[in-house]
Order: sequence, then structure tokens, then C-alpha cells
Amino acid sequence: MIVVVALNPALDVTHHVDGVDWTGVNRPAGVRAEPGGKGLNVARTLGLLGAEVLVLGLIGGSTGDAVRSALAASGVASAFTDIAGDTRRTFAVVDTGRGEVALFNEPGPPVSAAEYERLRAAYREALAGCDAVVLSGSLPPGVPADAYAELIRLAAADGVPAVLDTSGEALRRGAAAGPAVVKPNLSELEATVGRAVPWAGPAGPSAVAGAAAELRSNGAEAVVVSLGADGLLAVTGDGTWLAAPARAVAGNPTGAGDAAVAGLAHGLALGRPWPERLREAAALGAAASAAPVAGELRLADYDRALRDIKIRDIKISSWGRS
Amino acid sequence: MIVVVALNPALDVTHHVDGVDWTGVNRPAGVRAEPGGKGLNVARTLGLLGAEVLVLGLIGGSTGDAVRSALAASGVASAFTDIAGDTRRTFAVVDTGRGEVALFNEPGPPVSAAEYERLRAAYREALAGCDAVVLSGSLPPGVPADAYAELIRLAAADGVPAVLDTSGEALRRGAAAGPAVVKPNLSELEATVGRAVPWAGPAGPSAVAGAAAELRSNGAEAVVVSLGADGLLAVTGDGTWLAAPARAVAGNPTGAGDAAVAGLAHGLALGRPWPERLREAAALGAAASAAPVAGELRLADYDRALRDIKIRDIKISSWGRS
Repeated sequence: MIVVVALNPALDVTHHVDGVDWTGVNRPAGVRAEPGGKGLNVARTLGLLGAEVLVLGLIGGSTGDAVRSALAASGVASAFTDIAGDTRRTFAVVDTGRGEVALFNEPGPPVSAAEYERLRAAYREALAGCDAVVLSGSLPPGVPADAYAELIRLAAADGVPAVLDTSGEALRRGAAAGPAVVKPNLSELEATVGRAVPWAGPAGPSAVAGAAAELRSNGAEAVVVSLGADGLLAVTGDGTWLAAPARAVAGNPTGAGDAAVAGLAHGLALGRPWPERLREAAALGAAASAAPVAGELRLADYDRALRDIKIRDIKISSWGRS
Repeated sequence: MIVVVALNPALDVTHHVDGVDWTGVNRPAGVRAEPGGKGLNVARTLGLLGAEVLVLGLIGGSTGDAVRSALAASGVASAFTDIAGDTRRTFAVVDTGRGEVALFNEPGPPVSAAEYERLRAAYREALAGCDAVVLSGSLPPGVPADAYAELIRLAAADGVPAVLDTSGEALRRGAAAGPAVVKPNLSELEATVGRAVPWAGPAGPSAVAGAAAELRSNGAEAVVVSLGADGLLAVTGDGTWLAAPARAVAGNPTGAGDAAVAGLAHGLALGRPWPERLREAAALGAAASAAPVAGELRLADYDRALRDIKIRDIKISSWGRS
């Protein structure tokens, strides 16, 4: 079983409007409301892969009820910890005419120390018989910045490997706690190593691998950098690889990183060799980009992408390291 | 008691953003979620006036739960009829820097014949001991276009007067069923009489009064036209009046019409003379415009507006009538 921790889930509301009037009244032609936040996106992709998943997390209010029931309808098991605050919404306004998207992310609800403590207790219980944990997304107000670091250490004490996908202070502290995999995107990697890491050009793979190795030296067993449509670059104890589509994938990269995290957790739980994990993860990211609806995946896209991913060895540059 | 029928209520979600990026990610500084739709706005204003109010309406899903509990928290009694569909949201993005508002109105949920029949049964029961009914807002899909006409006739059969505030076919059919008051705005009045009705200029009051008299001749006992910041123009069996603020009220006219409807229903239920009803209704509209948050009212603004409203007699023009 893979446990996915969603500390700051959301109800993702999407309005489709042809030609938005940003100073007037619009009547969306299409309205969707789905479980969201990075953790729940990962959990739904793991469900599509046939993995046994349990979602833990903090949830509250009528928006939380909507998230809980929609997640159950998609067949993903959950054991949420109830909180007094209201689960946040995100609003996406998709201008179908102009091909533009405006996103409005509400802040998460405040979480009390007692509420977080109940989540932690549920987590410790769930670790028994668990093959991997996924810690993904931002921390809501009130949850300590070292929460992910602590959850990683608790998992390690039970022999359970962790995949971490977050940003800022939570990423820095979590990476130092020794997770099996950290999955930053390029800008999160840059923020963590404190310098620009140029991806474009022939020196890009070597430069990114160097920065990822630097992040890895702080404690993570492996660092996998997501590069949008260009795939994944992994620095691991077994080697350094770039997993990239042979052809560029047109589409919407929203959710591609979450799909890749699901692939990384799946391969980790099954103990697959790194090149296989990367192929699956990069193919899931490409299929998520190709899907017409953010967060959804079509099996045909995934099958095509699996055949289309090229894996190649990368040499690590010493660029920027003194 | 005043019964307010809200066939298509909403959860009004408002995001305040300073300088919206319409093609990127925004983090709203303020988030509000309130009961909305015209009927619930009217009911909340009646509650502020100290009137005894009962809201009837169609409600469903977790968004409906949020509406129901927020309405109860504001002290307004309700006896909603549950439906299988999800209550709609409206989403307003207020750009605090540019002073612009973008509004996204979701369509209402589909309503079955059996669900509407249950609402109608609850309505017939509530008519006993009721002083006035308010029928306000759009009809959700599945509710027949003559629903308001039928509800007006049922009320009349029990001796209960009705205030109608809607648009299009529902307004045309409802007005013909003989409500005590119909409250169109200028564009709804124009759509109903089928021609432009110019308000600007010295001939405006006479022209609007002529068109309102035309609508009244189809069956309504009185027609009150809301004119935004310029107040209300009423054509009644007792006379024709313009109730306007002596000074222009700066602010946000959203919700001013609903506040005016609450005033009209309040005066109707209490049997007040028309000039008094109009003063209260126009003052409520002005106070709603002056409030910093749409749909809210401050007593100080209301008191000031009450003193500031001028009522004057209007002669009806025969402009546009052959």
C-alpha cells in the first residue's frame, strides 16, 4: 500500500468561458469541480495505475465534504483527519477562445496543534504494512515547517521510504531528513541551491544534474528534477539519467509533475530499477500534459508515451560548485 | 411573516486580488463565501430590517449545505426543499488595484418535476399566516417558465400579495398573473415592452413611467423600476412617483436592486402608503450601494439615505404608445 499525505487538499473548480470579459459578467459554458491539491492528484494517478492507495490528510467544512465524496467516487480510499477550518478552493478560469488560463489559489485553512497531532497519530498507524509514503504539496497555516521532515523520519523508523514534492523551507528541511526521493521542479531546485540553473543548451543536463547532486548531498537518496515537457532528470545512488520524450508533447503541463510523482512512488513501492521508474514517471507526465483536462490521463496517451521516452546517462558537471 | 422563494440560490465566492494576472497564478488576499442569488439577498436584508422571514427554495449538494449553514448563521429561517443536483456557485474576482470586477455565474442545477412539486407543496403550506411573498431571481433548468405565474396565483387565492423580481419569459408570464408589485430594472423593462426606454434627460421620468404603465396594464397592481444610483420609479394605483437620492451615491450598485425589493416587500407586508414604501426601498438601495461589501448594509448609511431620498410626482408620457 502507498500512503499519500495531503495536508492542504483543495476543491479545484474550473470554469470554461469562450472570450472572458474580465470587467463584466460571464456565464461559463462548462463547470467542473474535482478533488485537487498535489497530494490528491498523485493519489488519483496511483489509483489509475492500479496501486492500493490510502489518502491521509486534513479536511474541513462543506468544501472538504465535497472533496471527500468526489475522491471516494473516483475509487480512492481515504482516512482524513477532520479540522475546524474550511478546506480551500482553487478557481481556474479557462478562456477557451484565447487559450489562456487564470488561476486563483485560496490560502489553506488554519490548522491547530491538536489537529496536526491527530493527523500524525493516524499517519503512524498507517505506516504499518505500507510500502511507500508520498508527501506532496504546500503546508497549510499552523502546520510546522519541519512537518515533512518529521513524517519522513517516522516513516524511516518503520522502514518505509518516502517521496517528497514540496517547495521552500518545507523542501529544504524535508530533503535533509533523508527521503528516498525528492522531486523539485527547476525553479524549486534553483531556490534550494540558491542560484540560476540553466536548462536550455547542450550544457543544461550536466548543470541540472550538478545542482540536483548538490541537493542530494544534503540527505535525499535520490533527486528527480521535473523539466516540464522535457521530461525528468534523476540523480540517484545507481546513476544519473535524463528521461525525455523523443518528441515534444503539446498540451497543458499542469499536473504533469504530480503524475510523475505517482510514477516515482509506484516504482519505489515495487522496487523497480531506476530506469524503469523514470520511464513510467516521465510517460505519466507526458500523458498528463496531453490530456484535455488537467489532472486526467488517457491510457492511449500513456501507452504511446511509454514507448516514446528515451533514457540516457548524464555526466554531472561541477558548474557552480567551488 | 414574509416568505421568500429562492428557486436558484447560489454560494457567492469572492476573491480580492491586487492586480490580477489573467494569464497566470493569483493568490487572493481575501476570500469570502456567502449565501447568494437574488432571493437570499432579499431575505437577508429583510432580516436586517427585523422582519420575520421564511426562505423556501431548492438546494442540493455540498455547495447547498454551505449556503444553508451560512444562511442559518445570519439568523434567517429557511425550509429548503432538497434536490439531487448541486447548488450553483458564483465567483467574483475583485481587482482591488484596478477597481474592476469579473463575475462568473454558474448555471443552476437541473430540477426534476417531482422536486419542483415538493417545493410547491411546501409553498402552499407556508402561505397560511403569511403577509407577503417575494419571488426573486432566475429559474433553474427544469422549472417551468410559468412557475412564478402559478406561485403568484396560489398566493392570491390565499389572499397573500406577491412581489416579483425576475427577467425574460418568467417576468412576462409572472407580471400577467397579477402580482402586487413587479420590480424590473431599466433593461428588463425595455426587454418586456420591446423598445428602448431612454432614462437620461428631462423626458426620462415620463418615458420610463409610460413604459412601466404599459407593463402594469398587463396585470401587475404596481410596477417599480430600479434605476441604479438614480433610485426607483413607481407606477401604482395610488399614483406615480420617482424616489431618488438628493445626492448621487458612489459605490457598487450590485445588490442595490435586491435591497430595494426587500424594502418594497416590507412596506407591502405592513400595508404602508406607497411614498413611505418607496422611501424605505430607495434608501435600502442607496445603503447597499454605499456598503464596501456587495450585499451588506450599514445602518448609518441607511439612516442617512432615508433622510436624503426625495419623492416627487411624475406625469406619464404617451411616448412610444400608439
